[in-house]
Amino acid sequence: MWRYLKRLIIGKPLKTLDEGNQSLSKFKALALLSSDALSSVAYGTEQITAVLLAVSASAMWFQIPVALLVLILLAAITLSYRMIIHAYPSGGGAYMVASTNWGRNLGLVAGGSLLVDYMLTVAVSVTAGTEAITSAIPALQGQTVPISIVIVILVMCLNLRGVRESASFLMVPVYSFVVMISLMIIIGLYNIITGQVEFSAPLAVGHSFAGMSIVLFLRAFSSGSSSLTGVEAISNAVPNFKDPKPKNAATTLAIMAIILGFFFAGITYLSYWYGIRPNGQVTVLAQIGIKTFGHGIFFYLLQLSTAMILAVAANTGFSAFPMLAYNLAKDKFMPHMYMDKGDRLGYSNGIVSLAVGAIILIAIFNGQTDKLIPLYAVGVFVPFTLSQSGMIIHWYRERGRGWIAKSVVNAIGAIISGALVLILFGLHFTNVWPYLIIMPALIYMFLKINKHYRNVARQLRLVSEQPIQRVNYSGSTVIVLVSNVTRVTAGAIDYARSIGDYVVAMHVSFDTDPTKEHRTAAEFKAEFPDVRYVDIHSSYRSITAPTLRFVDVIAKKAKERNHSTTIIVPQFTPKKGWQNILHNQTSFRLRAVLNTRDDVSISTYYYHLKE
Amino acid sequence: MWRYLKRLIIGKPLKTLDEGNQSLSKFKALALLSSDALSSVAYGTEQITAVLLAVSASAMWFQIPVALLVLILLAAITLSYRMIIHAYPSGGGAYMVASTNWGRNLGLVAGGSLLVDYMLTVAVSVTAGTEAITSAIPALQGQTVPISIVIVILVMCLNLRGVRESASFLMVPVYSFVVMISLMIIIGLYNIITGQVEFSAPLAVGHSFAGMSIVLFLRAFSSGSSSLTGVEAISNAVPNFKDPKPKNAATTLAIMAIILGFFFAGITYLSYWYGIRPNGQVTVLAQIGIKTFGHGIFFYLLQLSTAMILAVAANTGFSAFPMLAYNLAKDKFMPHMYMDKGDRLGYSNGIVSLAVGAIILIAIFNGQTDKLIPLYAVGVFVPFTLSQSGMIIHWYRERGRGWIAKSVVNAIGAIISGALVLILFGLHFTNVWPYLIIMPALIYMFLKINKHYRNVARQLRLVSEQPIQRVNYSGSTVIVLVSNVTRVTAGAIDYARSIGDYVVAMHVSFDTDPTKEHRTAAEFKAEFPDVRYVDIHSSYRSITAPTLRFVDVIAKKAKERNHSTTIIVPQFTPKKGWQNILHNQTSFRLRAVLNTRDDVSISTYYYHLKE
Repeated sequence: MWRYLKRLIIGKPLKTLDEGNQSLSKFKALALLSSDALSSVAYGTEQITAVLLAVSASAMWFQIPVALLVLILLAAITLSYRMIIHAYPSGGGAYMVASTNWGRNLGLVAGGSLLVDYMLTVAVSVTAGTEAITSAIPALQGQTVPISIVIVILVMCLNLRGVRESASFLMVPVYSFVVMISLMIIIGLYNIITGQVEFSAPLAVGHSFAGMSIVLFLRAFSSGSSSLTGVEAISNAVPNFKDPKPKNAATTLAIMAIILGFFFAGITYLSYWYGIRPNGQVTVLAQIGIKTFGHGIFFYLLQLSTAMILAVAANTGFSAFPMLAYNLAKDKFMPHMYMDKGDRLGYSNGIVSLAVGAIILIAIFNGQTDKLIPLYAVGVFVPFTLSQSGMIIHWYRERGRGWIAKSVVNAIGAIISGALVLILFGLHFTNVWPYLIIMPALIYMFLKINKHYRNVARQLRLVSEQPIQRVNYSGSTVIVLVSNVTRVTAGAIDYARSIGDYVVAMHVSFDTDPTKEHRTAAEFKAEFPDVRYVDIHSSYRSITAPTLRFVDVIAKKAKERNHSTTIIVPQFTPKKGWQNILHNQTSFRLRAVLNTRDDVSISTYYYHLKE
Repeated sequence: MWRYLKRLIIGKPLKTLDEGNQSLSKFKALALLSSDALSSVAYGTEQITAVLLAVSASAMWFQIPVALLVLILLAAITLSYRMIIHAYPSGGGAYMVASTNWGRNLGLVAGGSLLVDYMLTVAVSVTAGTEAITSAIPALQGQTVPISIVIVILVMCLNLRGVRESASFLMVPVYSFVVMISLMIIIGLYNIITGQVEFSAPLAVGHSFAGMSIVLFLRAFSSGSSSLTGVEAISNAVPNFKDPKPKNAATTLAIMAIILGFFFAGITYLSYWYGIRPNGQVTVLAQIGIKTFGHGIFFYLLQLSTAMILAVAANTGFSAFPMLAYNLAKDKFMPHMYMDKGDRLGYSNGIVSLAVGAIILIAIFNGQTDKLIPLYAVGVFVPFTLSQSGMIIHWYRERGRGWIAKSVVNAIGAIISGALVLILFGLHFTNVWPYLIIMPALIYMFLKINKHYRNVARQLRLVSEQPIQRVNYSGSTVIVLVSNVTRVTAGAIDYARSIGDYVVAMHVSFDTDPTKEHRTAAEFKAEFPDVRYVDIHSSYRSITAPTLRFVDVIAKKAKERNHSTTIIVPQFTPKKGWQNILHNQTSFRLRAVLNTRDDVSISTYYYHLKE
């Protein structure tokens, strides 16, 4: 049943060779990898104006210079990541670049930041998408958390189906959003130019106001930088592109940056001109939409496409997280299971982990976008800083054609990003302090896992300082566990004789019903007269302790005879899976304790019921 | 770690022979088994007055005749259950009596009703207890569900420690409640007799009022009958008493009934005299407490003891449910695991199941006591009716001394209980309809489980119409699964040779890295030149499908040679448990699919890492 359900939701397994076809064209890649970055404009301008309005309405014109600085940062980051794509075409992004150039530990800081960040991407995008819905349909207010969780699960299922199919599915919302926002900006600017909308800003650019200060400017800038989250996604996913992978990826990144810059500039300018003020009920973007389109069908289309792109922006995380987890697992910093590809060739464990993490974040923060954004920004700009400064080292090492010019570009990006991190810690500390707890914990976990894997590999190696001890057994001793005398017992004894030179049957009895115990012994001896039958008496209810004691004695004797020791647990399997819960789990419990013994193998003899 | 935690919470394992000492004196049994019944007075009177007030304040005097009828019912049920205790000293209560006299199906109706009912007992008692707390401490309002869940878990842990210790622990709240309510009634009556409190009832007993009708009377009566829930608990737990078990149990029941009757009568009379009106904030009992004691220390002691007895009333369910589940499991209507005693000789699975069920009920009904009570009453009075009518059949079959008199007592109980069930369905249908869905589902499950167990027993029996086929194998074929060549592989091969006459190693390879596959093959052949090594190529990511295909081929050949077939899964176990999640679960998945094959045993070779 479960298998059919899985097939229905996830699709039929793909052959490993099908993998090549899962590559992305630029058009599809833009849809799959840019939704996070593009959708950031839905909340970026609002973050800036909210900071400014908290001081005074007169401060609102500051959004224009702040936006200009954000655009400069965007340009620097884009140029920087284009270089990274060409220099590291195998993907891995900030983690790869920082590890290679800054060394393992700073690489892990970048990797850890991004892991958490992708979870925040999913959480923030989905909750912001839900806010876009509730801006249009107030009746749904208060249902943010359940709506968000359902969306996360839907996106997770899409991703378990595999990369390409998700892309096809997600093109509609991404390109609808691009069309709607373009339309809104063009109509808005046309109306302004033709003089149909009057200038409504409280104060024009350049006027001084009370509270005007560099700190205010930096606060607003650091909040607005959340518009740039998601720009790095393309550089992590280079191997997903069609050949030539680096060129296609770099072109896609450039296209995305241009669209993003145009949207952010246009929206901020309209917000300034219209004199929009953020409030708790209707988002800034929705307010601009109403001013531009009126309360008609176009406004609802705008909200719908915003909600859809935000909901699927989460998808950027679902493309990038499993890839990063794969890279960390390959380097033995995360569990190997993140390297297992699912039936549909996606890294299922990464996809599921991300969804679980995002749902937990949504639940903890009760679906409140604003609380999550500063932490989200720190998680993004720490790896930005590390990867861009790492690139300077890279250029210096290579010293190829024009390396100084390239280094300068990366240096500008690194300096602005690094400054942003400092500003976020200085001016938004109440929201970003969890970073200082999460990161050390993650790094500790990475290092601990790494140490364990290296430890295990050393112990398992055939050739090492400690020479391997091969054993040439002269026979085998077999213990058959008997709870009662049935066809299962008979089959297990027959099997035991085929593999064992010495077979002994063992039964654990309790005080409660001595006649029953005697009957079991008599039945066994009647059916198997030539097999030794040992009845172990237990004063406790536990069957495991006396079994262990007996096994230890027999195993010791076997060792003296140079025998191997096998314990056979006879078990019948009912016809239908659910019926297993009807039979006692004793054999399961026994296996769980017996596996602690050295030189003892545990064998399960299965008797399959036919009805 | 987990084992120490378990030891700390649950205590050290008890020997089976310790069981005798776990028996209860009358004094302790009263605490352990009567909390449900006695605590019912905390909400019983309120249920009556709430129904009456909904019609008119003038209707309030009806509570006196309604209370009288409830007391008659209490007397009938008590006499009836005393007879049941003597007739069926092994416990099992309504389930046992109904099965024996009415036959299997009606017995299952009684048993199923009680199972659900004990969950409702826990849910209702705990939420009502939480209401008593919030009546005294309004600041805690809105936290009903989490408080309730914590209490359920606490009571569960107490019960996992074993019967007797729970009793010792629970005597304090039960006897405090007895003292506080007795005090309240005595002081209240003294004040009335000495004329210190004026008569405040809206209308004295006997006056007619608008809306006076038999339907109103029956509605109030059926709601008030919730005061009698829990009376049956003692009859289910007779084997827990000290010898002579039936006599002690019957005496305890009589003492409990007298206390219960006195409390219910006293509280209802005070409620009538004081003219108390139920409201959503402060319970009726708390209002009576304030009128009697004032807003001082005695009022808070009353609330505290009420909350405590209600919270531990849940414990009645925890004594009765596992016992009933045991009886149903013994008769093969519920999974055998309900017959397993835990380390502390309690039926752990029953205890845990009950807690889980109660927590689900609390969560679904959002901690609202009132919604649960009618369903609770139906669940109680259906088995009351069946057991008491069953007793008439019992007396008729035996026809001992005075059987007609005994039958009359049981008949009165059966008729009132049966009428109550009809009234509940007629007048409270909106709250009790789930019973009509749950019961058929439970009965279906009971019968399905029963059929399965009988089916399995028939198939496993050594002696049956289908003669058993014993096999005398002439050798054994062993397949060793190899993922890479390490010390684990070496150990597994050595072991395989000790049990196998023919050993073959099998490796599954994927397209992705052919050089690695060749290296693995070369390494294997260098280390084990005399073992056949088969490399199976898989086009899919799945390792299970090609393994199964290969195993089927080998098993077929083995059968032709009259060999048994064993698959060895080599596995290393890391030093610490948590490290298991770091290693891939392939061997676990393989075992899960290989166990579907007939005549194939699966053996795990464990290699224990030392560091």
